[in-house]
Amino acid sequence: MSETGVKNEQSETVLFDSAALKLDCGVTLNHVSLAYTTYGTLNGDKRNAILICHPLTCDQYPASENPQTGRDGWWTQAVGPGRPIDTDKYFVICSNVLGGCGGSTGPQTDNPDGSGPYGLNFPVITIADMVRAQNLLIDHLGIESLFCVIGGSMGGMQVLEWAAMHGPRVFSAVPIATSARHSSQNIAFHEVGRQAILADPEWHAGAYYEKDAHPRKGLAVARMAAHITYLSETALQRKFGRNLQDRESVTYGFDADFQIESYLRHQGMSFVERFDANSYLYITRAMDYFDIAAENNGNLAAAFKDTATRFCVMSFTSDWLFPTSESVNLVRALNAAGANVSFVEIESDKGHDAFLLDEPEMHATLSGFLKSAAKARGLIEGGRDHD
Amino acid sequence: MSETGVKNEQSETVLFDSAALKLDCGVTLNHVSLAYTTYGTLNGDKRNAILICHPLTCDQYPASENPQTGRDGWWTQAVGPGRPIDTDKYFVICSNVLGGCGGSTGPQTDNPDGSGPYGLNFPVITIADMVRAQNLLIDHLGIESLFCVIGGSMGGMQVLEWAAMHGPRVFSAVPIATSARHSSQNIAFHEVGRQAILADPEWHAGAYYEKDAHPRKGLAVARMAAHITYLSETALQRKFGRNLQDRESVTYGFDADFQIESYLRHQGMSFVERFDANSYLYITRAMDYFDIAAENNGNLAAAFKDTATRFCVMSFTSDWLFPTSESVNLVRALNAAGANVSFVEIESDKGHDAFLLDEPEMHATLSGFLKSAAKARGLIEGGRDHD
Repeated sequence: MSETGVKNEQSETVLFDSAALKLDCGVTLNHVSLAYTTYGTLNGDKRNAILICHPLTCDQYPASENPQTGRDGWWTQAVGPGRPIDTDKYFVICSNVLGGCGGSTGPQTDNPDGSGPYGLNFPVITIADMVRAQNLLIDHLGIESLFCVIGGSMGGMQVLEWAAMHGPRVFSAVPIATSARHSSQNIAFHEVGRQAILADPEWHAGAYYEKDAHPRKGLAVARMAAHITYLSETALQRKFGRNLQDRESVTYGFDADFQIESYLRHQGMSFVERFDANSYLYITRAMDYFDIAAENNGNLAAAFKDTATRFCVMSFTSDWLFPTSESVNLVRALNAAGANVSFVEIESDKGHDAFLLDEPEMHATLSGFLKSAAKARGLIEGGRDHD
Repeated sequence: MSETGVKNEQSETVLFDSAALKLDCGVTLNHVSLAYTTYGTLNGDKRNAILICHPLTCDQYPASENPQTGRDGWWTQAVGPGRPIDTDKYFVICSNVLGGCGGSTGPQTDNPDGSGPYGLNFPVITIADMVRAQNLLIDHLGIESLFCVIGGSMGGMQVLEWAAMHGPRVFSAVPIATSARHSSQNIAFHEVGRQAILADPEWHAGAYYEKDAHPRKGLAVARMAAHITYLSETALQRKFGRNLQDRESVTYGFDADFQIESYLRHQGMSFVERFDANSYLYITRAMDYFDIAAENNGNLAAAFKDTATRFCVMSFTSDWLFPTSESVNLVRALNAAGANVSFVEIESDKGHDAFLLDEPEMHATLSGFLKSAAKARGLIEGGRDHD
């Protein structure tokens, strides 16, 4: 039990060395590790499991401290005892994505051929590949069907891929602040970040592990650029405005005169302590490639044809990275596919990051949706109650 | 006469070596060169001069080819014979800003103390300093009062500073797609660009000139990040979407699979051929420091108190770098100051760059405003006609 009061927290790494993971790029991985954490108790018929899919730079610790980084759980507002994703009621699973750097197989993992860390020899992966790996984990846990798959941003992309690829295993799905395809502007921002990493001489064409190097400066710049896109202009103006950082007046130099500069530099510097630059390249690439409609000849609705999954789609008014228009496109396609879908656009000035923050309307929506879905699945009163 | 049909094009560099230029940072420059171009003919009483202030990465060649870079004039849509800023009617002046790299004094200029190029020993300048230097040029040209000062983006900042500092010399002013202060988000994007340059080992703490180096990779990343902010999400989606670059399918690699990636890389690579990295640092810093209200104890209207200048403010609906809200703030302050001001928000999906492009409504507004101002000044019929 962690200090957050979550019962039955367990973190493990499972090695799949007999299952073949055939990736979209054509490569088959026969040796895949997934690091995952579970919270709560799987009920007798294994029908109360919720899979949380994490966003780009998070990990398998949504509700508890990451013992490697010492950082608090990244979604404690939403996940925990009595929280919308209630670990007293549900068995919550979160795994570090394939390609990540939190213990799952990724570019920093040793290549089974004995040549040392993969580096750029790691195959380029997709969101679908991440889901294929998670699917092995769900098999491993003996769960036939997930009660719900939930995630924001890149996590939401995984949610959609789960519903599209493994609909019968997904009773309900909550894609938040996401899109069925990465936009041109989003690809553009990712490309800036990647070029910043590639420009760093410590990158060594991805083979920096052996040289005890890390493209820290490039990765920090990538993080700084990305971080701007996670916040709304309003939030930046409200939090920082043109306030100066610990000084009375500007210094006529290139120091961090403004709080926003100091904040961004801190974001960049702290990020490089916990994230691997190659993982950043691979995961951003997976997001860029994401386009569920393209996987279905341009027809997004076809991806969800005859789906029995219940969807709850959420977006935020001030999110300009994954704007409401993207969610609306998704909802239209789900409706066209005859899906059971509810959609809420939440008023917030916090930008894309709103889904990670204290957003009562999001939490109320999530609670209400899960309660209704739990009734429909017979997990609580109104159906069978497994609490 | 240039190939664009502009009459009397002249490009010169004037050295001010007796006038003292006291900068905001406290340093006094006694040796300042300004490279400038003029088009058209100054009339007898020198009342038909229009000063064009250029944006961040442009130069003193709005209406004709830059002989150094070979690039076309950057504002030929708006400036030339028969254009809204009609070089057949007006005497048009444009100077490379102080701190720039188009021939005016900047960090790449030799320090008069004989120590070689300034590099980081160049004093940090402000938008007001750029205007002070331009003011010396207007003195040099023997012009008492400018008919109009016009500019977009950083050029618009200079326009506002001209009106605030030298109101009696500014008969009319057209600030386009600009703001009276640089926002937190805009400072943030500039800081990302600067950190990308500073991270490049070829930057050598600004002393790269002597080493025959140039932080090309860092400057390219800076340009890529900035370029995204110049375009709207809609324009990116329309121009590039998720289209692939000369290939049928993604390559599962880090090549420029998408057109938007290829476009941004090209923007970055071509920029470093024509722009100096230190100039980029200094000019972005000048923009960050810009805050006319702060120069007047937080009262923006006070900056324009009793102004006789006629203002025409323009913004574009899809410009998220200098959104309409910034122009509205400015217009409110000008109204509070009792100024003669007209304001037009132009419907365009082209983002911030719209002011440089073929925008008929902007051009019509500019023509109409200049015609009306020319009448009021007695330059054309309705008053005295100096054509």
